[in-house]
Amino acid sequence: MKRYEALAAEVADSIRRRVLKPGDRLPSVRQASAARGVSPSTVFQAYYLLEARGLVESRPRSGYYVTRAAAAQPPEPEQASRPDGESRRVDVSDLVFEVMQAAMARELVPFGSAFPSPLLFPLDRLGRALAATAPHIDPWSTVDDLTPGNAELRRQIALRYLLGGMQVDADGLVVTNGALEALNLAIGVVTAPGDAVLVESPCFYATLQILQRRNLRAIEVPTHPREGIDLDAVAAAIARHAPKACWVMSTFQNPLGASMPAERKRALVELLGRHGIPLIEDDVYAELYFGSERPVPAKAFDRDGLVMHCSSFSKCLAPGHRIGWVAGGRFAGRIARHKLTTTLNTNVPSQLAIAHYLQRGGFDRHLRRLRKALAAQQAQCLAAVARHFPRGTRVTRPAGGYFLWLELPGGADALAVQREAAARGISVAPGPVFSASRGFGHCLRLNCGHPLDARAQEALATLGRLAAAFV
Amino acid sequence: MKRYEALAAEVADSIRRRVLKPGDRLPSVRQASAARGVSPSTVFQAYYLLEARGLVESRPRSGYYVTRAAAAQPPEPEQASRPDGESRRVDVSDLVFEVMQAAMARELVPFGSAFPSPLLFPLDRLGRALAATAPHIDPWSTVDDLTPGNAELRRQIALRYLLGGMQVDADGLVVTNGALEALNLAIGVVTAPGDAVLVESPCFYATLQILQRRNLRAIEVPTHPREGIDLDAVAAAIARHAPKACWVMSTFQNPLGASMPAERKRALVELLGRHGIPLIEDDVYAELYFGSERPVPAKAFDRDGLVMHCSSFSKCLAPGHRIGWVAGGRFAGRIARHKLTTTLNTNVPSQLAIAHYLQRGGFDRHLRRLRKALAAQQAQCLAAVARHFPRGTRVTRPAGGYFLWLELPGGADALAVQREAAARGISVAPGPVFSASRGFGHCLRLNCGHPLDARAQEALATLGRLAAAFV
Repeated sequence: MKRYEALAAEVADSIRRRVLKPGDRLPSVRQASAARGVSPSTVFQAYYLLEARGLVESRPRSGYYVTRAAAAQPPEPEQASRPDGESRRVDVSDLVFEVMQAAMARELVPFGSAFPSPLLFPLDRLGRALAATAPHIDPWSTVDDLTPGNAELRRQIALRYLLGGMQVDADGLVVTNGALEALNLAIGVVTAPGDAVLVESPCFYATLQILQRRNLRAIEVPTHPREGIDLDAVAAAIARHAPKACWVMSTFQNPLGASMPAERKRALVELLGRHGIPLIEDDVYAELYFGSERPVPAKAFDRDGLVMHCSSFSKCLAPGHRIGWVAGGRFAGRIARHKLTTTLNTNVPSQLAIAHYLQRGGFDRHLRRLRKALAAQQAQCLAAVARHFPRGTRVTRPAGGYFLWLELPGGADALAVQREAAARGISVAPGPVFSASRGFGHCLRLNCGHPLDARAQEALATLGRLAAAFV
Repeated sequence: MKRYEALAAEVADSIRRRVLKPGDRLPSVRQASAARGVSPSTVFQAYYLLEARGLVESRPRSGYYVTRAAAAQPPEPEQASRPDGESRRVDVSDLVFEVMQAAMARELVPFGSAFPSPLLFPLDRLGRALAATAPHIDPWSTVDDLTPGNAELRRQIALRYLLGGMQVDADGLVVTNGALEALNLAIGVVTAPGDAVLVESPCFYATLQILQRRNLRAIEVPTHPREGIDLDAVAAAIARHAPKACWVMSTFQNPLGASMPAERKRALVELLGRHGIPLIEDDVYAELYFGSERPVPAKAFDRDGLVMHCSSFSKCLAPGHRIGWVAGGRFAGRIARHKLTTTLNTNVPSQLAIAHYLQRGGFDRHLRRLRKALAAQQAQCLAAVARHFPRGTRVTRPAGGYFLWLELPGGADALAVQREAAARGISVAPGPVFSASRGFGHCLRLNCGHPLDARAQEALATLGRLAAAFV
């Protein structure tokens, strides 16, 4: 954890324990800096993060104050999950398909959606980039820009890694049809049917669907709602099951929102490295951080080329364009070859348009706006959950992304809540779709990537009532 | 075989046997029509096909004459292949990857390429279609146009089927990242590792790569160089191996150029239907016919929904856009679901642009130009092969597409020819990449989808010399 994150966590904790109350003024930057022996900029970053999360607000020429919403925030989940440690065949696909397919209908209030509001993206500017580049496509590029992808786009992606302090060779990148194809290729080149794979508990349902389709076994590993997968448990599972891969979302994990601290990421890479186990890192939310610095991925600590870092532009820039990539380390060649016989190539016009957009600058400006919008929406959602959900509900406060994870009190039945909500025009993702062992029956994943308008507020109140009713 | 095709074949045969010689005038349309009791339009269609194939030329106000090139045409392969009838694990991928990867380099003379010249396509008009549609993309379409694909594009594809006399429900179509993804999805939903699949002999190398990656077994079935897969052999293979699918390219097969006569297609569908075996029909060259009518696919005879018809715009309209589709019959739902966990969706801007292009009309005008260019290039290639290749070389004369299949005389070594050609800057596809049993060691596939300019002529002369040298 960075210094500013530690400071922010400490202040948040004081607010939660009501040491700091709504309306209280935080120590000034100068005071806090002197008292703790950190730089003023560290304090600024901490306060900025707290503000983004709706816990404090700045008043001009006066300082930072605890918001009213802050006091009302429900407690966070504190316990890591406790899956049974078995390796098991996966059989969730029907449930997931049924539930998540139903969540896609445009007319529903999209708390169950996997996507943030498409209105948050510069689709008009991307459209203009397409208009600018498409009429000048080099016809031969449609033939010989095959499989690894457009060279200029790969160069731009490598540059983004470099900005984050990472050396990733453009030649080791394979452009894919979204991150989902990247993940499929990655798991495809390191596993065969029957192999076991370490996954988080809970984990992204598409991961489970992919394991099921490929006849792979899942080993669910205890995962902390803030700090991610448990390393002792990873070590134990390696000893017991000899898994062929580990698949994690190390930053703003879906559904928990957990982010592994950098040191934990490093330790995971080293632990897996000692056993020669490839790490598939799904990092599609990396750009959606609310703090002041981009979280470093596990890939940054990869010295053996064992980490396949999968990401895309779908969640941060260009939904619908289906442009993702994988930095495949030592597996890059096999990944390119696998793609050659599955989808051959990725849409050329969108590759060129996104490369053009990235060249022109404006991506970072867009990202700052996007992060601010998502942080504000998260704060609104948290406040509304506090208002409408039964006492005892716990909610995560991820430092990025657009999901909240709710632990409902007592014996709440998330599947019943989901079913009843659907009947009322509201989608929501029930906990069991995130688990091979159908755990998390009392949990919900809430999408806060959409503006919390009156209809959504109303829907959240309905969800809260249903949650209370199905306890 | 249609009446005009039968008439054309008969005239071509007379030319081959030198009953008709270069400079001879064909019977007038009126004479031929009266003599054979067919309509003048049938005769016109036959002569038109012969002209497209470079065997006759029309002289204004005079009639049709046998060309000089016609007389020089080498003989066609006449024998169906004779694979051993075994079911075998596939292990060609290294060879194919090595050979075909090498063929992609832009600087090579592209006789080994799998693609026609990209200059044959209206990329500028498609660029304008992108420019017209991209700035007006409905943002929500990026979220809820998922998996089956854009509704308007599916409607336009269904309309194309209707023009061909086929009822294909738009709801049963799944838009894919090119035909290759369609084929992968199709084979994925009807097979499990270890299953056996009927394929043509020779067959498209990507088919073999896909079977290998999926741990499927290949049963190579005798295939005639003009009329496609042998139905008695299919029946025998079904009895012996209980295959889980049959995968054919029923029209302008790659690499043979064979087209199954409509009656044979019907019989194949019925034969497979009696055993409940799904047919995967790869039909990517369907639009590239030189005759006057679009060949009907096997899918037209599908009453049980067992045929998965896979095609794309990559070879007829929009290379690089990666827009294909599958009409999946009874498997459509499973295919959509499979795609949901592999690539999720297909590039939205290109789907909209192609739908827009199709709406505006102009596709058929483009196709007429494209077919004419490909037919002319085939005729030139045939003439050049006749000039430069050793005596005894046999060459197919497909009625569409852009491949020629050459049987070299004696013990010619196609892999040696390919290797030596590569060293001289010329690519060519050697026979063994088209066979799970590495047969066809004396065969070459020649791409005639590129204009036969001076450099290509020279390269073909070199290939001819190499073919003679490695006998």
